[in-house]
Amino acid sequence: MTRSIISLNSGSSSIKFGLYHLEEQGPVHVAGGKLEGIGTAPRIRIHSDTGEILLEKSWGEGTKDGGAGLTHEPLLSELYDWAHDHLQDHAIVAVGHRVVHGGGRYWAPRLIDEALVAELDTFSPLAPLHQPHNLAAIREIARKAPHLVQVACFDTGFHHAMPGVATRLPLPRAYAARGMRRYGFHGLSYEYVSARLATLDPALAQGRVIVAHLGNGASLCAMRGGASVDTTMGFTALDGLIMGTRTGMLDPGAVIHLQLQEGLSAHEVESMLYRRSGLLGLSELSSDMRSLHASDDPRAAEAIESFVWTAARQMGALMVSLEGLDGLVFTAGIGENDPVIRAAICARLAWTGLVLDEAANAANAPVISSPESRVIVRVIPTDEERQIALHTFSLTQPFMDAAKGDS
Amino acid sequence: MTRSIISLNSGSSSIKFGLYHLEEQGPVHVAGGKLEGIGTAPRIRIHSDTGEILLEKSWGEGTKDGGAGLTHEPLLSELYDWAHDHLQDHAIVAVGHRVVHGGGRYWAPRLIDEALVAELDTFSPLAPLHQPHNLAAIREIARKAPHLVQVACFDTGFHHAMPGVATRLPLPRAYAARGMRRYGFHGLSYEYVSARLATLDPALAQGRVIVAHLGNGASLCAMRGGASVDTTMGFTALDGLIMGTRTGMLDPGAVIHLQLQEGLSAHEVESMLYRRSGLLGLSELSSDMRSLHASDDPRAAEAIESFVWTAARQMGALMVSLEGLDGLVFTAGIGENDPVIRAAICARLAWTGLVLDEAANAANAPVISSPESRVIVRVIPTDEERQIALHTFSLTQPFMDAAKGDS
Repeated sequence: MTRSIISLNSGSSSIKFGLYHLEEQGPVHVAGGKLEGIGTAPRIRIHSDTGEILLEKSWGEGTKDGGAGLTHEPLLSELYDWAHDHLQDHAIVAVGHRVVHGGGRYWAPRLIDEALVAELDTFSPLAPLHQPHNLAAIREIARKAPHLVQVACFDTGFHHAMPGVATRLPLPRAYAARGMRRYGFHGLSYEYVSARLATLDPALAQGRVIVAHLGNGASLCAMRGGASVDTTMGFTALDGLIMGTRTGMLDPGAVIHLQLQEGLSAHEVESMLYRRSGLLGLSELSSDMRSLHASDDPRAAEAIESFVWTAARQMGALMVSLEGLDGLVFTAGIGENDPVIRAAICARLAWTGLVLDEAANAANAPVISSPESRVIVRVIPTDEERQIALHTFSLTQPFMDAAKGDS
Repeated sequence: MTRSIISLNSGSSSIKFGLYHLEEQGPVHVAGGKLEGIGTAPRIRIHSDTGEILLEKSWGEGTKDGGAGLTHEPLLSELYDWAHDHLQDHAIVAVGHRVVHGGGRYWAPRLIDEALVAELDTFSPLAPLHQPHNLAAIREIARKAPHLVQVACFDTGFHHAMPGVATRLPLPRAYAARGMRRYGFHGLSYEYVSARLATLDPALAQGRVIVAHLGNGASLCAMRGGASVDTTMGFTALDGLIMGTRTGMLDPGAVIHLQLQEGLSAHEVESMLYRRSGLLGLSELSSDMRSLHASDDPRAAEAIESFVWTAARQMGALMVSLEGLDGLVFTAGIGENDPVIRAAICARLAWTGLVLDEAANAANAPVISSPESRVIVRVIPTDEERQIALHTFSLTQPFMDAAKGDS
């Protein structure tokens, strides 16, 4: 019987997942999809590797299935049951999870047991909007299928070796001991892209590279020799670049002002900075870059301009950490598919000697800089689910070998 | 009778001031000094232009003069009386003030009347720790000497023509209409340094220049052709670089975390971010760079490293706004007098082609880059009081001419 694994990436209102067969050479993707709208109107869509729709279902508000009342657990349970039935003669042997926070302690992927879950829960105050959902998914799988191997892959892990100066917050030192430091996120994406770059262009991968993960969440990672030396998302997922609904970095005095002068509570400010700011707040139209491009409202143009300005400006900051720039890699939704944003960012970096190949950029080609460019610019599609599967495969392999020995 | 003016720069716990005679060619500095320790143990020291101590007095805690109980007003009154007596046959005709905030409306220096003071007071919520002290000084002078011309010089003014994108905060747009935008500060210092640079090196002043105002408060200004196009202190004086006791820019999620997870109130967080963070918070020793250099405690070294890293990194961000870098100018306490910090920052920018002249740097020379450096590095002492005097002179001149006509 062929063995399979599931990759789970559980967010606050969505769960992305992938199904992989374990072949000799590693995990092979067979299906994947997304569960969205958790808490409002959940919908699931699963497609095969060949693009065939395998499942499409929604629980609209007012349907007898509930909809808004459905939490992560029953939806995850339904997803697991579908995977179990669909795979038929492929036994699910392991589930890999994206866990947003490994705290100051965990960076390498780890096999999960109850003690680890309990310890990871102590990091929940560091990522209160994300960590609890990650752990809820782990607990639900453990309840449904206690025999499965589960693996935690940490979103902070890739940045664990950043120099000390890149980890310090300018606060009274006592707070560092209480976990308040810069960690960095989007680590599974950066790890995947770093490995892809090493395959596609080993010389560049050895150099000074900025990877721009530009999606609904967005950050930058400065890499030297493929390892993170600096990143824009520091202590929380609010930091760094302007995002769909998040501010990115913000004058801390503005947070205080919203409370002491505008009368908002800390909870109200938190909600506003995470959910109603960024592109949505500036445009008053949409958090989706595609909608903003399609609009001729000047507020949409201003929101896009702010996004580009902030991203390019923070690339300048990371250039200082890298002591120059050899390569720039775009990834994630906007990074992979939006030539207009890539061109606007690159235009602000023309002074570095970066020259864009406009035709290649328009085609989302793998290399979008001109041959004479002093900075090589690439587009590399990211795949966090695959990175989770790779880690899960590698940590599950010893069990498989043991099982093989038994049979 | 020769006419004189006073420049006042009123902070939360100190008042810097200068006395100037008005000559044909402009204001000539005759004396200056500082009133410090307001609210704790006030002390005043006034020296002549030749370095002679003209007045030295302190109101220690427990002395019968009061000390801690003395507010800005009686101290300012005493300072004014001293100036009046000292100047003898020089009539004080005007007082110029640094006013931290001109809001979105005032940028050019203005003659003060009651209506203006009332309007400037509506900007106090934008700078609650500074604006009220500035206005209290104006009111006290108006009470003591109602005949005097008073002039408001805005610290935000120099940045008024920054491009729109540099003024936007990534918040819901409604807050911009309520004054929440990036303004920039240290404008009188930047204006003075910009004018000095235009005299010292007119070609460079036309280029792409970063001015680093590094004092107890600190910020950077990106100038093109002598005008501000970007700056690191945005909406409040908390933003941007690490300072003596202030954080500088900080993940907004950290501000929220200190409240929701660590249980501090918004007022407690505000106080901590302004007064117990930055160099003091990281070192747990001192907010004074000189003390940190003198210490062999590793925490002092880490605080210095963080200061340098943050400053250099934000210079990278401003280079993007400038599309390159022709010149770097250091000013203010640390910028003018600390070769170690200047060398450390410049070392992180060596990749730009910046080459420091170590001997010139050690001597705080006017030009501290080598002839082959692609970036010209200068040290220009700032003089905010003189900039206030220049504005006050220019706005007071029409009154003087009218008075001359009368006589």
